Amino acid sequence: MNAYRAPLGDMQFLMSEVFRADEVFAAMPGTAEVTPDLISAILEEAAKIAENLLSPINRNGDHEGCQWTDGVVTTPAGFKEAYEEYVAGGWAGLTGEIDFGGQGMPKLLSSQIEEMFFGANSSFALYTILTTGATLTLSEHASAELKQRYLPKMYEGRWTGTMCLTEPHAGTDLGMIRTKAVPQADGSYRITGTKIFITAGEHDLTENIIHLVLAKLPDAPAGPKGISLFVVPRNAVDNEGDLTGELNGVSCGAVEHKMGIKGSATCVMNFDSAQGWLVGELNHGLSNMFTMMNYERLSMGLQSNGLADSSYQTAADYARERIQGRSPTGPQQPESAADPILVHPDVRRMLLTMRANIMAGRALSMYAAMQLDISRFHPDPEQRQQADRLVALLIPVAKAYCSDRGFEMCVMGQQVLGGHGYVAEWGLEQNVRDARIAQIYEGANGIQALDLMGRKTVRAGGELLAVLLTEMDKFVADAQDIPGMDRYLPHLLNNQQMIRSVTRSVIDRASDNPEEIGAASYAYMELLGLTLYNFMWLRILAAVLPKLQAGSGDTPHLSGLVKTAEFFFARLLPRTRALIDEIEAGAQTLMAMSAEEF
Amino acid sequence: MNAYRAPLGDMQFLMSEVFRADEVFAAMPGTAEVTPDLISAILEEAAKIAENLLSPINRNGDHEGCQWTDGVVTTPAGFKEAYEEYVAGGWAGLTGEIDFGGQGMPKLLSSQIEEMFFGANSSFALYTILTTGATLTLSEHASAELKQRYLPKMYEGRWTGTMCLTEPHAGTDLGMIRTKAVPQADGSYRITGTKIFITAGEHDLTENIIHLVLAKLPDAPAGPKGISLFVVPRNAVDNEGDLTGELNGVSCGAVEHKMGIKGSATCVMNFDSAQGWLVGELNHGLSNMFTMMNYERLSMGLQSNGLADSSYQTAADYARERIQGRSPTGPQQPESAADPILVHPDVRRMLLTMRANIMAGRALSMYAAMQLDISRFHPDPEQRQQADRLVALLIPVAKAYCSDRGFEMCVMGQQVLGGHGYVAEWGLEQNVRDARIAQIYEGANGIQALDLMGRKTVRAGGELLAVLLTEMDKFVADAQDIPGMDRYLPHLLNNQQMIRSVTRSVIDRASDNPEEIGAASYAYMELLGLTLYNFMWLRILAAVLPKLQAGSGDTPHLSGLVKTAEFFFARLLPRTRALIDEIEAGAQTLMAMSAEEF
Repeated sequence: MNAYRAPLGDMQFLMSEVFRADEVFAAMPGTAEVTPDLISAILEEAAKIAENLLSPINRNGDHEGCQWTDGVVTTPAGFKEAYEEYVAGGWAGLTGEIDFGGQGMPKLLSSQIEEMFFGANSSFALYTILTTGATLTLSEHASAELKQRYLPKMYEGRWTGTMCLTEPHAGTDLGMIRTKAVPQADGSYRITGTKIFITAGEHDLTENIIHLVLAKLPDAPAGPKGISLFVVPRNAVDNEGDLTGELNGVSCGAVEHKMGIKGSATCVMNFDSAQGWLVGELNHGLSNMFTMMNYERLSMGLQSNGLADSSYQTAADYARERIQGRSPTGPQQPESAADPILVHPDVRRMLLTMRANIMAGRALSMYAAMQLDISRFHPDPEQRQQADRLVALLIPVAKAYCSDRGFEMCVMGQQVLGGHGYVAEWGLEQNVRDARIAQIYEGANGIQALDLMGRKTVRAGGELLAVLLTEMDKFVADAQDIPGMDRYLPHLLNNQQMIRSVTRSVIDRASDNPEEIGAASYAYMELLGLTLYNFMWLRILAAVLPKLQAGSGDTPHLSGLVKTAEFFFARLLPRTRALIDEIEAGAQTLMAMSAEEF
Repeated sequence: MNAYRAPLGDMQFLMSEVFRADEVFAAMPGTAEVTPDLISAILEEAAKIAENLLSPINRNGDHEGCQWTDGVVTTPAGFKEAYEEYVAGGWAGLTGEIDFGGQGMPKLLSSQIEEMFFGANSSFALYTILTTGATLTLSEHASAELKQRYLPKMYEGRWTGTMCLTEPHAGTDLGMIRTKAVPQADGSYRITGTKIFITAGEHDLTENIIHLVLAKLPDAPAGPKGISLFVVPRNAVDNEGDLTGELNGVSCGAVEHKMGIKGSATCVMNFDSAQGWLVGELNHGLSNMFTMMNYERLSMGLQSNGLADSSYQTAADYARERIQGRSPTGPQQPESAADPILVHPDVRRMLLTMRANIMAGRALSMYAAMQLDISRFHPDPEQRQQADRLVALLIPVAKAYCSDRGFEMCVMGQQVLGGHGYVAEWGLEQNVRDARIAQIYEGANGIQALDLMGRKTVRAGGELLAVLLTEMDKFVADAQDIPGMDRYLPHLLNNQQMIRSVTRSVIDRASDNPEEIGAASYAYMELLGLTLYNFMWLRILAAVLPKLQAGSGDTPHLSGLVKTAEFFFARLLPRTRALIDEIEAGAQTLMAMSAEEF
């Protein structure tokens, strides 16, 4: 098994040269202290954690998995020690609110750390990501008192967090949940119900686990508008935030046996009259929970991209080293028994497809993360609103398109190794299994596509897309003076043209038949994803070409990026036309089948 | 976990109505006794084996896997008993040579049984498929004496067979193998070497295992032309075909830990001066081994298709039963808390994509199997030669395209179930893991594509493709008088046009630069696959439409096929254009990267 190597060169290049993070951060008081030196230092330290602490325990974590015995969940060997080191390094509070002990770092930075941690060990990373999600929700919606009670310990990493949404009969349709919250005289609630698929619901890493639970009051309105959000600690906590020593009616009924992320405990959680406190307003639970969903969904794209990069590293190394057969143009290494398989065009096709998707996916995640930061930190409300709109449009794509491509790239990496990719030894089959979940959790990708096509596009009348297209126009206007860019910019202009026209067409059709939204949604999400990858490659080229012309920078890295971009335009971008045809095919062929004809 | 249901209705319809198996078999003396009644009876019995014997032990087989202890390999609980029942039913000799105790059944029939067995339990099926491959090779190339020694017991199922090709340093490039065969005075050979990835190399199902081993004589020519084929029993066998009671220097060093097919023992095999006998001529081992490769490669497509169908069955049931959310057009089941998820266009997109690919894949496998039968049984040498040519062209596509789509369809089935698709309980994640191997073994799919593009297309000057296109022309000429077909036939005519032109273009470019072959190969394989699926759907429609018009047959089944075909044309076929662009992109963007730029 190859060890994970953090792609610091690519990350730093994207952050400083493509997205000019220094300028973005300098413009916002909340991030003004995040200097390029600080960014480099943090990324380099994170890389050490990923490479030396998390990667070495990744394979055993998969092999051993989490064990459940009478409600006690044991994480794989090494996880507890690694978690202690992670906490000691101060990583748990990286993005947390400064007033409660967090470090207030922006998502543009932390997203790259997430990619590394997920790439090195997705199961481990999940314990930390869920906590980040829970603290974000508390930070945004909880009372000052609740924040003071929970946040400092969570930022310290002494307690982890969860999000308890799904129930056996209610996943996508949370309006159907049955978990009950009964108001108590002291202002708290008693929570009773069963939640499933709860990541990090129970484990042995920390002394306490803080659950954020969706539940309904006995007299709540039916459907999603009757859902409230509660914070429910596993172990009771007093007003000062100290453990009382009492348990709180929260127990883990089982851990799931899953395809992958086996070191992550996916739990059935039983709440038996557990004491909880309302977070935010009554009956606003769903929207309160979903404020941090944009962050979590971006993380799922980062997971896939990290795993895909891990697979790429192994596959590229293997292709350079494995000798088998000869180049079609004659022996390239006549002194050895065969040539490395990298001489074969089809092996290169696989590696370039991986590289092109991974780099664009990373750039898209950064672009979305940057909008999240602007939306959170920018002093100008107009800038914040503009960023909010981009976030709304970009997140479903950064979740679904990046996780779809990430999974496919893990599968492709496996293929480069042939039979050696199918056996456990090289780790590539684990990456496939671990990456598969990102297409499913935090809203399955079909739901992301529906959110994009329905709420964010049709119901928004195409306004969010217009914001993005304007951003692309601004980029093109700036970039057209860069020598060499004129060869590439038409790719984006064509794409913009296509997407404008097809969006109008879906909006029109949907006004007559609401089924047209779901009929177009998946292909539309893929079309926007491909368009955004196109945009990202152009942004990369706009940073690369001047440096290459000036002869500055790491030339093989830069010229490799240009060649990968050209591969992307020639080989991957043509799929846009097929997607347009799929979208224009409409609902009729989907709806014609009766239930029994399936 | 849902139980597997053999798709007898689809199989019977394809066999009798689309491919008119009765006429094909009646025209050949070797298959004249395979009447429609016999076909039905055998398929129905096989369905019982698949559903009642193999499906029930599938999940535990995955969970338990094969255990290796000091060279002894134990198959999962229930496998031995199931194997005994399989043998008692006479299934092991189904396609075997009649003179040695086989039943001489055609591949068109046995292929459907393979699909069922693979769909119900791929790990179990592999023990039987490898034996079929080994007996085919012996039947074709071994001396009468060797055949008499091994075939009867293998057809009885008392002994199984293997194919020992790969070595740690030599997989795709078998010319590099190091296993040695030293001639002995008695005409036998002493075989020494290590083979890896040997399916069913060691197990506890039978009293003996017969290995077919590629090895080189000490003075053999270098490369593939120095490879010979040997038969090497694990337990020594006397001239009468009885066990002598002595071992033969064959041992299992380990079983691999793999992503899937865990109930199938994938072995490291050590041959330590094991006694073997030459099969066929010296130094013709590779071509002798490859005569049965066409059969084996077709089987790998069948594996994926069977697993995809198993996933489809579960996903379609789930979509009909799982209630969640409401139809975009308003409640369809107002009496229940939500509608079944089948009301959602995007869920239908997934199910229709599965159904469209599975049915076309099954038809393509039958079409290729029929050519294998004609090539083997037809009295007219011209017909045999024509079938040989179609086999050469069709098999790499039936292996690679069907296994790629099969895997994707298993992934899609998982997606229909959301989180429930990721946990082990429903069996869909196992199907994904089990299907993944079919893209890799028996020649990875990239190698299939290279074989198709290089040897079968460019080096054959497009002649094999011309044979297929003529078959399509004949079909169109016959079908254009069928009322209603005029709407659909242009899909095929357009496709033929495209593939003619792009084939010419690749042949031209390859004459200047041999790298153009590998640069085009994968997309070309996919283009031919999509074209063949198109052809298959038209053949299905040509059988369905007259029956629908006559009001005969199972109307929901027939109208479901028409609607699935229309979905295929509207939604899946448009990808052809993107594939053409990929092919025409040529080698340049692939070859530009230096090794260190990857």
